[in-house]
Amino acid sequence: MAVQQTTFTTVRQGDQMALGGALEVILPLRYAGARSVSIGYEIVGPARAPVLIVAGGISAGRHVISSDEFAESGWWECQKTALSAARILAIDWIGSDGALDCPIDPTDQALAIAAVLDALGIVRAAGFAGASYGAMVGLHFAVLFPHRCEQLLAISASERAHPFSSACRSLQRKAIALGERADDPAAGVALARALAMLTYRTADEYRQRFDAAPSVEGLSVRVSAEDYLDFQGARSAARTSAVAYRRLSESIDLHQMEASQLNLPCIFVAVESDWLVPMEDIRALADHVPQARFIVLPSLFGHDAFLKEQDQVSAILTEFIASLESAQ
Amino acid sequence: MAVQQTTFTTVRQGDQMALGGALEVILPLRYAGARSVSIGYEIVGPARAPVLIVAGGISAGRHVISSDEFAESGWWECQKTALSAARILAIDWIGSDGALDCPIDPTDQALAIAAVLDALGIVRAAGFAGASYGAMVGLHFAVLFPHRCEQLLAISASERAHPFSSACRSLQRKAIALGERADDPAAGVALARALAMLTYRTADEYRQRFDAAPSVEGLSVRVSAEDYLDFQGARSAARTSAVAYRRLSESIDLHQMEASQLNLPCIFVAVESDWLVPMEDIRALADHVPQARFIVLPSLFGHDAFLKEQDQVSAILTEFIASLESAQ
Repeated sequence: MAVQQTTFTTVRQGDQMALGGALEVILPLRYAGARSVSIGYEIVGPARAPVLIVAGGISAGRHVISSDEFAESGWWECQKTALSAARILAIDWIGSDGALDCPIDPTDQALAIAAVLDALGIVRAAGFAGASYGAMVGLHFAVLFPHRCEQLLAISASERAHPFSSACRSLQRKAIALGERADDPAAGVALARALAMLTYRTADEYRQRFDAAPSVEGLSVRVSAEDYLDFQGARSAARTSAVAYRRLSESIDLHQMEASQLNLPCIFVAVESDWLVPMEDIRALADHVPQARFIVLPSLFGHDAFLKEQDQVSAILTEFIASLESAQ
Repeated sequence: MAVQQTTFTTVRQGDQMALGGALEVILPLRYAGARSVSIGYEIVGPARAPVLIVAGGISAGRHVISSDEFAESGWWECQKTALSAARILAIDWIGSDGALDCPIDPTDQALAIAAVLDALGIVRAAGFAGASYGAMVGLHFAVLFPHRCEQLLAISASERAHPFSSACRSLQRKAIALGERADDPAAGVALARALAMLTYRTADEYRQRFDAAPSVEGLSVRVSAEDYLDFQGARSAARTSAVAYRRLSESIDLHQMEASQLNLPCIFVAVESDWLVPMEDIRALADHVPQARFIVLPSLFGHDAFLKEQDQVSAILTEFIASLESAQ
């Protein structure tokens, strides 16, 4: 992993320390071979706090929570209180800029995180807290770099993608291809994202939120959830290219690891109503890891519980970060 | 309902009686007003057997089972033994020929069936056996024409579409629109159908059938279920136009009725694993019908159980048809 260039956009010393930048490195990608990639990253939080790698879904990135230096809301803003006790390191997924049009294995993301740790001179992180795709990457990071992470918190990830979920994603990618053929890749991404949104939630939530009868205006029929799905799709299409969406979506399907390779204390969190990554698959993973704790989260929100169940997730994060501190 | 023309393609007398044809009528459609429609129909079976209206999903039609006169396999061929005890009447859904580009209410289909009964001189059917969309139409037929049907068997239908299922279908229709924009409506229909196929089955079935890891060839990633979904999509696109698919898909979302309007003996069948039409919704319907029996079908196949659980469905159909005979 040859580091070619490191640029910090912000550096501040003192009790708080925030860095953000882009690292240009050549990574040996599993399927595509050596590729030059740009890895956006951010590290924020008290300088003496334990380093916690944080990683979310395929649409999440380096900006986890707001800070004085980076004031915008992050993708896990609702967990700012819990996360503030740690020094948070996060990256933009390689491929998220659309510059890598090749299969991206989740292990490639683990290499990218290691490259950032190298550039920052961090030998070892106290912990890795990942959810969804970020938890898959966390599993691989812990397997590939057993000496660079002391504890793992993995929310809503199992040993490999469920075949039904993979089938759902393959159709999202067909929507993207159809959008490209219609010369409107954004429309394809919007449809793919709307399909994905369905898989992130539950039928029970839709019943509560979108109970109204469909509307018929002239010759057009629209169902109750349609405005919401259109909005979510358009928002995603505005910030994600077709290539980025396709390659990160594929990357979830390429996820595959074995529980027996994990030799660190792990907490696995499963959401009862998650049908994208079923609870039983996570239980099976936890059952085969010697130092594992298995937590079941009751929720209306399925796979999105890590973003929606603020109190339950905060309690888990707070306890996890406290255990990192006491281990220092 | 002015009957303009009736054409029989086959007429045979004797113990067996088979007719097939197309009826040209003007129907007062709920949303689109008076429209001239062509209703394909078939009636087969012993001349003295009780008349049973049979109706299936939106891709099913008038040809239910093979007969001497119409030798091709029908969409419910696996139930030929059970169904042979009845005189089966079935139609092609109005809209299935793509000639009606307007919202089609399930009540419109009930009117179409009544028009065929009129043309055939059948005052009253002994029973109506419907599954999926066909069961929704059966519910409306029983409400609109309480004196034209003595008993109802409704498999996998509730009082109205579930909001989550409607959301899924709205995205199938967006796929169709995207195909039209790409000047390849067949590709849109194929994607819509593949999406629908996912909703007809269960994650457990996919786990059993499509357990293989994804394949990576060059820069292309394919998941295990993808060939199957492509095949199903292409097959559907070869026989269903974009307009037909969109309008029949919408029609499911327009389904809405009230249990209290049903005044006939009903059997409601719910499939435990059906997440498109959840068992609890069907139980709620059955609970509000005085003369109702509620049957739960255990199955791996979700909404498609009526096509896949040959033995269980055969037992239900056989008993239902026997009760029609004894009521004659």
